[in-house]
Amino acid sequence: MRVVITGAFGFLGRRLAATLLRTRTFGGIPVERLVLADRAVPPDASVAADPLVDVVHGDLIDRLDEVFAEPVDVVFHLAAAVSAECEADVDLGMRVNVDTTRALLDAARAQAATGGPVPRVVFSSSLAVYGSGPGLPLPSPVSESTLPVPRSSYGTQKLICEHLIADYTRHGFVDGRVARLMTVSVRPGTPNAAASGFLSGIIREPLAGLPAICPVRPDLRVALASPRRTVQGILRVAEAERGAGPGRLDGPLPVNLPALMVSVADMLATLRQVAGDAVADLVTISPDPAVEAIVASWPAVFDHTRAAALGLAPDPGFLSLVRDYLTDHADAVRLDLGAAPTS
Amino acid sequence: MRVVITGAFGFLGRRLAATLLRTRTFGGIPVERLVLADRAVPPDASVAADPLVDVVHGDLIDRLDEVFAEPVDVVFHLAAAVSAECEADVDLGMRVNVDTTRALLDAARAQAATGGPVPRVVFSSSLAVYGSGPGLPLPSPVSESTLPVPRSSYGTQKLICEHLIADYTRHGFVDGRVARLMTVSVRPGTPNAAASGFLSGIIREPLAGLPAICPVRPDLRVALASPRRTVQGILRVAEAERGAGPGRLDGPLPVNLPALMVSVADMLATLRQVAGDAVADLVTISPDPAVEAIVASWPAVFDHTRAAALGLAPDPGFLSLVRDYLTDHADAVRLDLGAAPTS
Repeated sequence: MRVVITGAFGFLGRRLAATLLRTRTFGGIPVERLVLADRAVPPDASVAADPLVDVVHGDLIDRLDEVFAEPVDVVFHLAAAVSAECEADVDLGMRVNVDTTRALLDAARAQAATGGPVPRVVFSSSLAVYGSGPGLPLPSPVSESTLPVPRSSYGTQKLICEHLIADYTRHGFVDGRVARLMTVSVRPGTPNAAASGFLSGIIREPLAGLPAICPVRPDLRVALASPRRTVQGILRVAEAERGAGPGRLDGPLPVNLPALMVSVADMLATLRQVAGDAVADLVTISPDPAVEAIVASWPAVFDHTRAAALGLAPDPGFLSLVRDYLTDHADAVRLDLGAAPTS
Repeated sequence: MRVVITGAFGFLGRRLAATLLRTRTFGGIPVERLVLADRAVPPDASVAADPLVDVVHGDLIDRLDEVFAEPVDVVFHLAAAVSAECEADVDLGMRVNVDTTRALLDAARAQAATGGPVPRVVFSSSLAVYGSGPGLPLPSPVSESTLPVPRSSYGTQKLICEHLIADYTRHGFVDGRVARLMTVSVRPGTPNAAASGFLSGIIREPLAGLPAICPVRPDLRVALASPRRTVQGILRVAEAERGAGPGRLDGPLPVNLPALMVSVADMLATLRQVAGDAVADLVTISPDPAVEAIVASWPAVFDHTRAAALGLAPDPGFLSLVRDYLTDHADAVRLDLGAAPTS
């Protein structure tokens, strides 16, 4: 089985690759090749050195010939431009998020049309497909039956891709699956141009001894998931057999991955609890209307029925997300945790 | 005011053009130029001879420079590939329905970005954005808040365009409006490749003395609108001021144009009533699973609240649709109506 990850050197791609390199199976079948495609260079030599791994480097839309040079069984399509950059540059978002996904789908379809396997295409969509606006409140909870009315170009582009994937799947061109990701927190690394980036930054930067800006009012409620639960959810949606019943993927709808609903104030209180006042005081509340308009339009409360049928559950609480980060990224933390209350 | 109609020589485009040439106004403002764009040549010389009219001939995607050579105030974008041809050739549908609409939107946006007026873009979408399928029944009635799950590539492509238009409108690139058309009946002319084409053909062909095939079971219920109510609805959505309150277009959602719900059996009974047994017996019931799968997935019962707020109402009954056709297309009817019961 030849498995491809696009956006493979993003933080979710790296976790997903690490998981597949550990289990060396997908859906119980051995993974013989793992193709890691990204416009970035590999973040460390060890991944590329694994005998299972091929690296495809460059803009995906220009590298599809290389990706499909050998038959592809599964593609995890994680590569994307993020929300704030898509809002600022609609053409960029259309090119990276829509045109590239369409080209990937057409390459997958061409493989099947010429006698190759019908590739399983696993698409990482987003809660940003939903949006509330003036006169258009979201129901609570939101489920996969809720009408998505995106309030961002990023959400619009993800939704367009969802519809393309559903149509190509209906035609039998690909076996498409769509997992809608919640805001992932605590995301390691450096800030990115996602409007939701601060939902990691207000924890990650203070834990590194750095100041952080919180650009929304603290009573804003958000839907979060840890990196580990997010990757677990993507894999589960990818591996599920189709059909009705527990553990199976039923019908053409996407799956909203489980969300932990929490307020920004709760997040900051948890930081204070774990790391103490000096660290928590590194966060400054300074609302930015452009960021707030996007993030506040997203739903916070989800009906998890569809995800639960696949055995997926939300993180147990925000403290768990912070502890995950402290465990997985101890090297990025400049904090004597022994000196702070951690009850 | 310079107004453009794409697909201007289709039957709806022609009616819309005739209406605008009669009133010579749009939203109370004089129409100074009416640009009729179509890949077909003008069906009769009289339209092109009107001093208000410019004809742009060719594939729209190649003629956008010509369309936007002078500032455009309003575009009625009716040009499209129809349902059965899109289902048979997904690439054709993506090119004609999605890529062309996107190019049109980008041309409109470029006009506004270079200091020209922000064009009003009126898009004819379709009830085909909705679909029911196994395990995924449609609610009854369907409203604009109902989740569209298209079961055809045509419906998918229309829905993708709706989302693009909503995003471009949110950014202020265009003033986009979306009218979702019901199946138009009785459509004049020759059969086309729309899956719903028979919903005109089973009336039009017998009235012309020709045999017709009905490819669905007669108890199938469908949502119809006459050509005149359809054009009236498109114009109303186009001319409405934005904002809350009666007669205004509120929020970002499309408008489902009003539908007359009727069964195919009712349609055939009306034909029998109007034209007699000899004419009605020209229809042969011969179900075609491919056509039935598409048409039966569409909703038949609609909540008309949003359309009614704009003052729009469905046709009063199927007899009215047949009489409209007899009045407007007497030349295509080979029938001594005096000899038939018309109670």
